[in-house]
Amino acid sequence: MKYHPLGDGRYLMRLDPGDELIASLRIFASEAQVGFGYITGLGSTASAVMSWLDPESGEYVRRKFDEPMEVANLTGTITVAADDGRPFVHVHAVLAPQELLAYAGHVHEARTGAVMEILLTTFEQKIERHSVPDKSFPWMCMPDEPLPGEDTPDGDAAAGDATAG
Amino acid sequence: MKYHPLGDGRYLMRLDPGDELIASLRIFASEAQVGFGYITGLGSTASAVMSWLDPESGEYVRRKFDEPMEVANLTGTITVAADDGRPFVHVHAVLAPQELLAYAGHVHEARTGAVMEILLTTFEQKIERHSVPDKSFPWMCMPDEPLPGEDTPDGDAAAGDATAG
Amino acid sequence: MKYHPLGDGRYLMRLDPGDELIASLRIFASEAQVGFGYITGLGSTASAVMSWLDPESGEYVRRKFDEPMEVANLTGTITVAADDGRPFVHVHAVLAPQELLAYAGHVHEARTGAVMEILLTTFEQKIERHSVPDKSFPWMCMPDEPLPGEDTPDGDAAAGDATAG
Repeated sequence: MKYHPLGDGRYLMRLDPGDELIASLRIFASEAQVGFGYITGLGSTASAVMSWLDPESGEYVRRKFDEPMEVANLTGTITVAADDGRPFVHVHAVLAPQELLAYAGHVHEARTGAVMEILLTTFEQKIERHSVPDKSFPWMCMPDEPLPGEDTPDGDAAAGDATAG
Repeated sequence: MKYHPLGDGRYLMRLDPGDELIASLRIFASEAQVGFGYITGLGSTASAVMSWLDPESGEYVRRKFDEPMEVANLTGTITVAADDGRPFVHVHAVLAPQELLAYAGHVHEARTGAVMEILLTTFEQKIERHSVPDKSFPWMCMPDEPLPGEDTPDGDAAAGDATAG
Repeated sequence: MKYHPLGDGRYLMRLDPGDELIASLRIFASEAQVGFGYITGLGSTASAVMSWLDPESGEYVRRKFDEPMEVANLTGTITVAADDGRPFVHVHAVLAPQELLAYAGHVHEARTGAVMEILLTTFEQKIERHSVPDKSFPWMCMPDEPLPGEDTPDGDAAAGDATAG
């Protein structure tokens, strides 16, 4: 994995054969001290694990892809986990095997095939993720926004989330 | 729907369960007085309507998706409708149900599942859309570009579009 | 093909019916003297050729799409070929025909249907591609990074690439 600053918080990242996408993005986010970032990319995978989030159970239904795939698109965000301050990487992908019919989903793991070319736009300002009861996915909190069920700065419960309080 | 400025015309938007994508983007575009913008995003939908534009008839062939889907990618533009000055939102998406085989198309409506995380890059400079005969989709006009069939500033018909005059 | 500067190296490009994507991006890259750029876009195609890169043979397995397709997403990079200094355009796409099941892959050719709307973020700083033995795809070299098999500036072979020397 190599990355290069392009100015104004933007970076070009190249992943080489075998490099794992999510781990590489976490290393980058730590090293570059990313408060918030978003990514877009393309390339190919040697293997990948993607999932669909079951809204009934709140569980990820995973599917492993062991064949080489084109990566038509990577889209994701980098935030900061509120509990431990570590980077939180959220990436979705569109992949295609030889016949080109596309698969898409939430990426748990993706090993680079020939290459991945990734563009990162980063900000020092921190956007945090919080684990929240009743939310199946860690919640991306806007700056100064109260957590669900938390009192707002003026002492009133946040109206739309009062049932979680 | 919540959005937060990231500086230099860029915004992070979060859609919450049930929030409708296209309506939310229109509200944002009005509030932030967007002259031109482009979006990229990911997340999940509870339901969606997408279409393919039939070039023969100029009609959208719609398909409704009532099951929960991952949103692998949202790509779109925000322009200004020339006739009424209102925001014009053009979004395409890649969605995947549980088995992860992807669907893609032009988005007419998308209700948020767990979340949508959207990045917006906006400009004050206005890019306008015009309804034009012979065009099945409102036409995105570059600044100072004559409309199809319209005289150019020096009085000559625009060469490539002379047949529409 | 029309493009318009949005400031800070960013451009909006519109492709009109019949315009070919890869050729248009090459013309843009030459005219705008792009050292490095990345693209995102949406629209529709009248026809397209996409492929999957076979890692065994290093050959592209092409598939031609002659029906009209929605373009849900274009993602790509513009670099400079080290051997002749010409623009090198690398684009992947997600396409969908009438039933909306998506196809994805590496784009060799894509003729515009109704329109393509493309955002380009460009940099003067040059990122070069090199043809390298053992690499099936021209290699994107980061500034100051030694080529595989080449001596590093201090005279030692690059550790990870020693076998190629």
